[in-house]
Amino acid sequence: MTQHNIAFLGLGNMGEAMAKNLLKAGHRLTVYNRTASKAADLEKLGATVAATPAAAVADAAFVFSMVTDDAALLELCLGPDGLVAALPAGAVHASCSTVAPDTNRRLAEAHAQHGSTLVATPVFGKPDVATAAKLWLAASGEADARQRLAPLLEALGQGVHDFGDDPGAASTVKLCGNFMLGAAIEAMAEAFTLAQKSGLARQQVYEFFTSTLFNTPIYKGYGKLVAERHYQPVGAAPAIIRKDMRLVLDESRTHLVPMPFANILHDHLSTTVAKGEQGDWAGFAERITDGAGL
Amino acid sequence: MTQHNIAFLGLGNMGEAMAKNLLKAGHRLTVYNRTASKAADLEKLGATVAATPAAAVADAAFVFSMVTDDAALLELCLGPDGLVAALPAGAVHASCSTVAPDTNRRLAEAHAQHGSTLVATPVFGKPDVATAAKLWLAASGEADARQRLAPLLEALGQGVHDFGDDPGAASTVKLCGNFMLGAAIEAMAEAFTLAQKSGLARQQVYEFFTSTLFNTPIYKGYGKLVAERHYQPVGAAPAIIRKDMRLVLDESRTHLVPMPFANILHDHLSTTVAKGEQGDWAGFAERITDGAGL
Repeated sequence: MTQHNIAFLGLGNMGEAMAKNLLKAGHRLTVYNRTASKAADLEKLGATVAATPAAAVADAAFVFSMVTDDAALLELCLGPDGLVAALPAGAVHASCSTVAPDTNRRLAEAHAQHGSTLVATPVFGKPDVATAAKLWLAASGEADARQRLAPLLEALGQGVHDFGDDPGAASTVKLCGNFMLGAAIEAMAEAFTLAQKSGLARQQVYEFFTSTLFNTPIYKGYGKLVAERHYQPVGAAPAIIRKDMRLVLDESRTHLVPMPFANILHDHLSTTVAKGEQGDWAGFAERITDGAGL
Repeated sequence: MTQHNIAFLGLGNMGEAMAKNLLKAGHRLTVYNRTASKAADLEKLGATVAATPAAAVADAAFVFSMVTDDAALLELCLGPDGLVAALPAGAVHASCSTVAPDTNRRLAEAHAQHGSTLVATPVFGKPDVATAAKLWLAASGEADARQRLAPLLEALGQGVHDFGDDPGAASTVKLCGNFMLGAAIEAMAEAFTLAQKSGLARQQVYEFFTSTLFNTPIYKGYGKLVAERHYQPVGAAPAIIRKDMRLVLDESRTHLVPMPFANILHDHLSTTVAKGEQGDWAGFAERITDGAGL
């Protein structure tokens, strides 16, 4: 594979794991993180650490960004020393964060004005999945940029699915996915709790369903946390996914779609954040277990 | 395998398919159905047709029952010419219907008074799965009867999971399973509809999720109906599964478990029944699609 100058901005658990896989693939990597200390591991592995987003992207052919929310992405792109104004013409920005579709659309326009291109490339998977380069990726944006980006995305996961030219489309898909994950967790929380209060062992019910009808890593992984009521390790914090559910509800209101399940998930995550619970976001399952007096 | 005198009572789509697999396994089968014409196929295959439940079980070592609801099962067991009083001492009744846990508990006591045993043996799978002998089964009830029944249950599916001595336990597991299936359908309905109104193709979103995070026959099978908005063939009618969701809610109220998802599913199925919609129960997905003006 051709080796490129790549910038990676945003080195949380997900970003760091993805950046390491780009390094492993032989690319020249420059990294930036608001809290600079998080770049130390990558620097040891050969990455160059930049002091600002603009400095990080100055000679990049490709930029990846992975930050926590819309505000952080807008700051990174359009704020002081932002990446959009500094990015060389012809460069492609792979926008990996979970943000509103309109945020990626708006940023795609800003890139176009500077001669570069944004492709929305949200990823599915926890940090351990990112480390193993087994993420699933969705991509949407201008066709030529998508094609140039494809080999880099392949290095991060087990498949890239194409959702066309609208840079908002892949963000919508990502929001739908996080919503469906939340619905699966809530369904297990309700079912396992009913079973427990009926005299069954949560663990046995969990094992039955995840070896039969719901025999899939998602149900097995999150179901284990729900069955054991032990929400560790933390794949994503409740506040992060609560933000995603708010984005789902924003979209549902914009597009006039009734989403009763999404409303419930958002409420449960609000309580989980309000109570200051520190585990994985799947800990919102406690709204049912705790709510049943267990 | 030892061949037995077996009675099969209740020859709907599920019961007929299961009865045929017992015939194929070489057992001597006597069948009964309230509407006698439904026994014609089985008679051609070698089954004896009985005129009453009592006549069907008169020399049976094992009885299977598969009827639509608690009232039908109680009538079959304890009504005029019911099976409980007629069943030979030592016989085992495999109660396959989806009913309240307490119904199977109450009937188990009635059997015990007559020297026979009821084992709750609910099954998971549509009629085509029953025909292919690929059902998943849960079993609970008196241990010796469960063991004697096990080889017969193996002939019907791809695995029997044991939930102990309480004849209500397996019914609880069955209700949890139907609830989790409903939650998966609702989640897809909300997600696919949001995607569609955001400019994406339902089919593409369906294909992405069912080839990645939700790569399982349940999501693929029901998701296809939801994506295409074509709820055929009918695996189970909306009224049947609405009854199951009512049983889930009854249990949630008895055991003080908040189940917000279950309440939504019940409401959606109520509307689907009230409107007289004739497709598979997954057609309750239309509450979201139709509700979004599509």
